[in-house]
Amino acid sequence: MIDPSVPVAPLSAPEPTDRRAAYFVSDSTGITAETLGNALLANFPTIAFVRHTVPFVDTEQGARAVVAEIDAAADAGLEPLVFTTVKQAALRSILSSARAVGIDLLAGHLTELESALGTTASEQLGQYHGVGDMTRYLNRMRAVEYAIEHDDGQSMRALDIADVVIIAPSRCGKTPTTMYLALQYGLLVANYPLTDDDFPTEGLPRAVAPYRERCFGLTTTPLRLSQVRHERRPGSRYASLAQCTLELRRAEDLYRRQRVPFLNSATKSVEEMSAVIMQTMKLRGA
Amino acid sequence: MIDPSVPVAPLSAPEPTDRRAAYFVSDSTGITAETLGNALLANFPTIAFVRHTVPFVDTEQGARAVVAEIDAAADAGLEPLVFTTVKQAALRSILSSARAVGIDLLAGHLTELESALGTTASEQLGQYHGVGDMTRYLNRMRAVEYAIEHDDGQSMRALDIADVVIIAPSRCGKTPTTMYLALQYGLLVANYPLTDDDFPTEGLPRAVAPYRERCFGLTTTPLRLSQVRHERRPGSRYASLAQCTLELRRAEDLYRRQRVPFLNSATKSVEEMSAVIMQTMKLRGA
Repeated sequence: MIDPSVPVAPLSAPEPTDRRAAYFVSDSTGITAETLGNALLANFPTIAFVRHTVPFVDTEQGARAVVAEIDAAADAGLEPLVFTTVKQAALRSILSSARAVGIDLLAGHLTELESALGTTASEQLGQYHGVGDMTRYLNRMRAVEYAIEHDDGQSMRALDIADVVIIAPSRCGKTPTTMYLALQYGLLVANYPLTDDDFPTEGLPRAVAPYRERCFGLTTTPLRLSQVRHERRPGSRYASLAQCTLELRRAEDLYRRQRVPFLNSATKSVEEMSAVIMQTMKLRGA
Repeated sequence: MIDPSVPVAPLSAPEPTDRRAAYFVSDSTGITAETLGNALLANFPTIAFVRHTVPFVDTEQGARAVVAEIDAAADAGLEPLVFTTVKQAALRSILSSARAVGIDLLAGHLTELESALGTTASEQLGQYHGVGDMTRYLNRMRAVEYAIEHDDGQSMRALDIADVVIIAPSRCGKTPTTMYLALQYGLLVANYPLTDDDFPTEGLPRAVAPYRERCFGLTTTPLRLSQVRHERRPGSRYASLAQCTLELRRAEDLYRRQRVPFLNSATKSVEEMSAVIMQTMKLRGA
């Protein structure tokens, strides 16, 4: 997310001068390899990385196919980097034969852990998706359905079991944050829009007032809100800077008056907002 | 997720014999530290880990507070392990003073990369949340809203722009998978329930038939489906093993007849299902 007060593409931004291929290879979904790999690559802004995620590399045949792909990139002069989170030693060994720089995100740490714990790592794969996952799955399914039912103040039913109620003016990021908290942590999250109608009164909107201590507010900058609203209704009064400024000021006044914790979503990703909400409301994943 | 054909708690499962504290410490959301840390710990099933995620450790004061917490766990005899993804060297140095085994998930690889790329890592923090994130945010917001609107066949509007249409009998995992694809990858995903009414005909349900090549089917095992349905409507015909067996057989027949790719969700997490769908449908994150 961008702070709208800062030009998005400063003239002084370094121009990538070099092109390299980057592979994220995993025996599972590839999400961890991709996330950590990207976090590492972000430290080298002068290089343009051509990224490839290769999930489910869990057979020797699969590993050999990836090696062929990586070697083709090497032949094309892209000097590949290969980030791996592959558990089986036999597959890691095949992958390491590629003409590329290999960064093993798992194996080295496993050795560190073995020595710290004074025991050897179990070779049983898939341990992580074992007992307890059925419960986790049911929790997440229930949480996502709860989030859909309670999105944008649609239903006030069962608000008493909500772990948190996110309140904010339209387009401040309530819906994606709600869904992320439900999916990632299995939390029951409702959200409620603050509209012009809610401000003549002193207190919180009637529907959410009984749950004040579970409310969390979002705000943003007027400029960013106006940009996001223009995406939905270009040129409308709803998207005007004046209207956005007014609604945000009223919302922040309300949060302060009602002692509702809140955060500014303008420079934060959905993941960051979710983590702040968890921390502030002292919530743990279900 | 569990394979229902396998007992969930086999008598031979190793009993944890040891208790250790595990901290996942991050200067951001902590998700990467937690995911990779848990993947590593899963290899040591005989040890019971007491887990703590500490996000947003981005000041010296914050780092010192974590050290105090870790040292308290050490005093309690929990011999802490500390997994970190903290970028600033000054903070890493404070964290390393804790009386614990430190596993740095980032710093070592940064050194490997510097030598592979022949350049030094930029000290500019927060690069990763830079240009492009506004677009990503808008894509995800749009995708989540699309998913909510098109959940469970609620709306057939704008199905022509769907990246994928997930079809399956009730409770096979359509909704959480849809939402995950929307949030994680910004894809436009609709889902449509296969009900008894859909089976007398030969082809796909009328609403989704025009989009056959974008359809993806889910199935599961009768036993698991019955378990999940009993959670919703205990003792109903809808949850009976006979009804579940029938619906799944019909759905799989339909997928095969219509050449709709499908997967069995019984032993897969939402993340895994999403990655398989992306790979099969040749989709890339938006």
